[in-house]
Amino acid sequence: MAEKEYRIVFRPENGAEHEAYAREGATLLSVARSAGVAIDAPCGGAGTCGKCKVRLVSGDVASARGRHISEEDFASGYRLACESSVIADAYVFVPASALAWQSQIRVDISDSESSREKIDRIRRGFADAGFAVDGGVRNVRALLTPPSLDDAEADRERLLRALGGSASSISLHALRKLPTALRDGGFSVDCLVLGGGAVIDVGNEAMRPVGVAIDIGTTTVSALAVDLDTGEVLSAGSAGNGQIRYGADVINRLIESARPGGAERLRKAIAYECLAPLTANICESAGVEPSRVARLSIAGNTTMMHLLLGVFGNHLRMEPYVPAFFSACGLTGADIDIGVNPGAEVFVAPSVGSYVGGDITAGALASGIYRTALGMDGGGEGASLFIDLGTNGEIALSGEGFLMSCACSAGPAFEGGDIRCGMRAMDGAIEAVRIDADTMAPDLSVIGGAEPIGICGSGLIDLIGELFRCRIIDARGKFVRDGDRIGVDEWDDGKYYVLARGDDDAPDIILSEVDIDNFIRAKGSVYSAIRTMLEVTGMEAGDLGRVFIAGGIGSAIDITSAIRIGMLPSLPQERYEYIGNTSLTGAYMTLLSKEARDRLEEIRGSMTYIELSAHPGYMDEFVAACFLPHTDASLFPAAP
Amino acid sequence: MAEKEYRIVFRPENGAEHEAYAREGATLLSVARSAGVAIDAPCGGAGTCGKCKVRLVSGDVASARGRHISEEDFASGYRLACESSVIADAYVFVPASALAWQSQIRVDISDSESSREKIDRIRRGFADAGFAVDGGVRNVRALLTPPSLDDAEADRERLLRALGGSASSISLHALRKLPTALRDGGFSVDCLVLGGGAVIDVGNEAMRPVGVAIDIGTTTVSALAVDLDTGEVLSAGSAGNGQIRYGADVINRLIESARPGGAERLRKAIAYECLAPLTANICESAGVEPSRVARLSIAGNTTMMHLLLGVFGNHLRMEPYVPAFFSACGLTGADIDIGVNPGAEVFVAPSVGSYVGGDITAGALASGIYRTALGMDGGGEGASLFIDLGTNGEIALSGEGFLMSCACSAGPAFEGGDIRCGMRAMDGAIEAVRIDADTMAPDLSVIGGAEPIGICGSGLIDLIGELFRCRIIDARGKFVRDGDRIGVDEWDDGKYYVLARGDDDAPDIILSEVDIDNFIRAKGSVYSAIRTMLEVTGMEAGDLGRVFIAGGIGSAIDITSAIRIGMLPSLPQERYEYIGNTSLTGAYMTLLSKEARDRLEEIRGSMTYIELSAHPGYMDEFVAACFLPHTDASLFPAAP
Repeated sequence: MAEKEYRIVFRPENGAEHEAYAREGATLLSVARSAGVAIDAPCGGAGTCGKCKVRLVSGDVASARGRHISEEDFASGYRLACESSVIADAYVFVPASALAWQSQIRVDISDSESSREKIDRIRRGFADAGFAVDGGVRNVRALLTPPSLDDAEADRERLLRALGGSASSISLHALRKLPTALRDGGFSVDCLVLGGGAVIDVGNEAMRPVGVAIDIGTTTVSALAVDLDTGEVLSAGSAGNGQIRYGADVINRLIESARPGGAERLRKAIAYECLAPLTANICESAGVEPSRVARLSIAGNTTMMHLLLGVFGNHLRMEPYVPAFFSACGLTGADIDIGVNPGAEVFVAPSVGSYVGGDITAGALASGIYRTALGMDGGGEGASLFIDLGTNGEIALSGEGFLMSCACSAGPAFEGGDIRCGMRAMDGAIEAVRIDADTMAPDLSVIGGAEPIGICGSGLIDLIGELFRCRIIDARGKFVRDGDRIGVDEWDDGKYYVLARGDDDAPDIILSEVDIDNFIRAKGSVYSAIRTMLEVTGMEAGDLGRVFIAGGIGSAIDITSAIRIGMLPSLPQERYEYIGNTSLTGAYMTLLSKEARDRLEEIRGSMTYIELSAHPGYMDEFVAACFLPHTDASLFPAAP
Repeated sequence: MAEKEYRIVFRPENGAEHEAYAREGATLLSVARSAGVAIDAPCGGAGTCGKCKVRLVSGDVASARGRHISEEDFASGYRLACESSVIADAYVFVPASALAWQSQIRVDISDSESSREKIDRIRRGFADAGFAVDGGVRNVRALLTPPSLDDAEADRERLLRALGGSASSISLHALRKLPTALRDGGFSVDCLVLGGGAVIDVGNEAMRPVGVAIDIGTTTVSALAVDLDTGEVLSAGSAGNGQIRYGADVINRLIESARPGGAERLRKAIAYECLAPLTANICESAGVEPSRVARLSIAGNTTMMHLLLGVFGNHLRMEPYVPAFFSACGLTGADIDIGVNPGAEVFVAPSVGSYVGGDITAGALASGIYRTALGMDGGGEGASLFIDLGTNGEIALSGEGFLMSCACSAGPAFEGGDIRCGMRAMDGAIEAVRIDADTMAPDLSVIGGAEPIGICGSGLIDLIGELFRCRIIDARGKFVRDGDRIGVDEWDDGKYYVLARGDDDAPDIILSEVDIDNFIRAKGSVYSAIRTMLEVTGMEAGDLGRVFIAGGIGSAIDITSAIRIGMLPSLPQERYEYIGNTSLTGAYMTLLSKEARDRLEEIRGSMTYIELSAHPGYMDEFVAACFLPHTDASLFPAAP
């Protein structure tokens, strides 16, 4: 006898009902996913993040209350979807808050000042690196002799004859359009020709050779539409990574991808829900048909590249942490499947390990740290460090004759994950904090200037640094002063700091001891990773000539705050430089320059990957770094 | 206000209901197509073939009776779908007879004697041509060092290292399977490697290198699964061309393909409904996964190739009759989209004109007639003629220093089209006829030996030849003797010959004067084409050393009958040879041999295409040939 199935209806806020049938014991989260209802679950359904809060309208589910739901809300039907099991038919309302990922996939075509600044930084990086724009893709106008009964040569052969030596093949995509284009144009036609001589598109007006550079972050995706002749950035945009509903971090996504159909599900989530609309939008803004994009350059971490290509990546998360591929060569637009020309050339930045991906090789390229390692700086620049703070933290160290990298298990704290009121660096995020040591009043800088709705990575670094400077928390991150005037309150879970008071519509923005603890572990993992790498190479922090900070944790982090909390080594300010999204910069460089692609391949070939967890002494370093600023106070002589 | 739409429900015999909504004036045929109900319409919906007869169960349509529906049937609700317009909601029953194409798409894996004979003929042709099997595709077993924390190289790079020089790239399809295959096999893996060094598949057991040769006929599709190392034919099959519901001939299909979405609709009809199941079936019979097929070789007429690739082909049917392409190079399995390996190599036989396609260049290759033209016969063989009788007729003439081809507008009569009781050469078809001049009783040979259900091309040639020999019809194809004993009866439309009496279940099998007229025009077009080509080259029929007959009009045509009716020149029997499906033989040759592919390219380069309709004198030749045997009796000295 077939097992009984229950009927579960989901009604997303602002959306139509979705119906599904499920067996007893299935979680509401998994049933929602199978029904195509995208409930947010950054923790991957582990019950820890509390984002998948839905409301049971009728029917029943089996669900314990847990700490994320108040008694009052529980009585009103609120449940965590990941913690609720099917036991009967049910009608479930999904509030917008649980569908948050959808609004994150909005596509921004930014021509704001900050966007222009970012683009200037990228173009300056390219020029400073000494790379030259290669071009390679051309528009060629062909004039054909019209056919007649005496000359009935086929369109394809007629075109190749007219193009002479400037093209040698015609893609199927172009062939399908050729007969109409020829006749619409009176047997004159414009051809988009790759460097190798392949005609990949035809039309009746000159086609600007355009490429797209993409950084696929675990949380955010950024892209640029670029003129391949001049390097001009025609438009830029970003969007949330649609895979986030399967987990905020790479581990949960890999677990999901290993489930039946998972690899294809995650591939579609990034390709169709994110990259395709983002590409369409930046192309529209640039005045180019997406189907005419002739080249793609993509950088991202190793997991993102596996999920983009639909390649089974479950072994990335299991010892001995082996990717399916470092490099993916010979791909075309059809393989990437995001609406660009199927014959487009595709470059994917190579990885060096499961947790050091193309975003880091691209970052090593963009930051220029490789020059010392590859003996290209004339011996003058000395050792340098590159730190990429994204959803994960990765570090590369370059010295004479070596290039080394590692991944620190920083978790998503720098992007606001694992922090109750944490959020990405977007409008409404508190990105800088000062606390007046006399009045104890916090002074907040909010992105976009509006009312704050949360706090992002750079704000957290500031806030914890200020709480420590004002001795509101101690070296273990525990509140040592409290009271209303100071802003420290207490509840069941322990004490917390109130950064901004809310009202009926908006909750308070707070930082709890649990949040502080999570953040201290994140900063400790970064510092201990740096220490371990220095130790492996027999260097000290003072030997570092330059330290480059990259990532999307805020428009810029305050280095003083970061040193104060013991996240970055105590070095003179001027040795530090914030260089933005280097994964995107690297993708831009390799989009335009063969020399940059060759250099990237050299970087991949020479970069050693250090698996910290296998390194003796790392755990001791980590434990020692989980204090403010550090158990070894001599490392931070300027600390309060 | 939106125009009102009516609800039309189709209930195919032995199938589920299909619902569609349509505006007033739409034909039932077009509505059925949009609803995915495949109603047969060999005439393309012109109202002439009468095959799309459906029954109105309830509701109403606007429809005149016409000659295909009796008054009684009309009263019972029978209507031609192509002649009925929507005027109200309707419920329409679609009898199996109107869905006939579906049964034609059944896939036969033949190991019958006739199938073995065909395969023997193909293999003999290959050997006689002096071609050698190239191989090229290999299975390579790779033994890898398992990864460890100290050696965490990625799977792809690890495999390439293990393969050393024997492979240089790994396709995305193979990459997706690699991690699991490696671990299932204890880091030993079998790789399917193309000649160029691309790994296109991986697995855990040795993969036999298999290719598929395909002939795409307008009516019938044939395919062979072939061992690429030995040339052994592992299995063979055939199926009806699923596009037939859009028209029996190429013109109607080109018209349909030019409608919105038509190119993709026709592409899917051949790729998904016909080639994919046919390939799956012959592969199953050969014990090979279709996704492991490493090479395809395809031949077919110019229209079929355009429709297969989804290339706009409407200009094929319009002066000056220019194809979109002669050759299609660089295609892969993904482009053909029939379930074979996406990285499979694909060869498509090139065309020389809109109506002389890859089936004819392949036929020139398979028949060997090219040898004289290319100076490869040592001057001994003399001129030869190649005649392919399929849904269309094409002719190639080879002499010293020239290779010439033309298409004759024979129409589908040789495959039973335009003939009331005509059918393809399949079980139940009368393939040979003798009439006893004394008793006037017909003696029938039926394919499969069962009760006859119709008559195929070879049977028609015999029957008309016999009717003429017995003076039942005159030189104009009109009945000059009648009466029950002779088998000639009369109705509204004129006289007809009864070949076999039916009963309550089966109608009589008859041949009307209209049928004879259609057939005489078909045979006249073949003969006049031959005459015109001879005339162009200054030759006479007697100069022809060999005449090769190819095509699927019956297991073999009776040359005496064909000469008797004036379809083929009056030459000694021994100069004629029936050589079967040369399009398939050519596809088999080019599947296995690079030399054959080179030769085919030479054939394409040297073959001149004669457009008969543009040739002065052709019409006179045609009119003169529309008699039995011909107006110039001196051409057929042996005629009765």
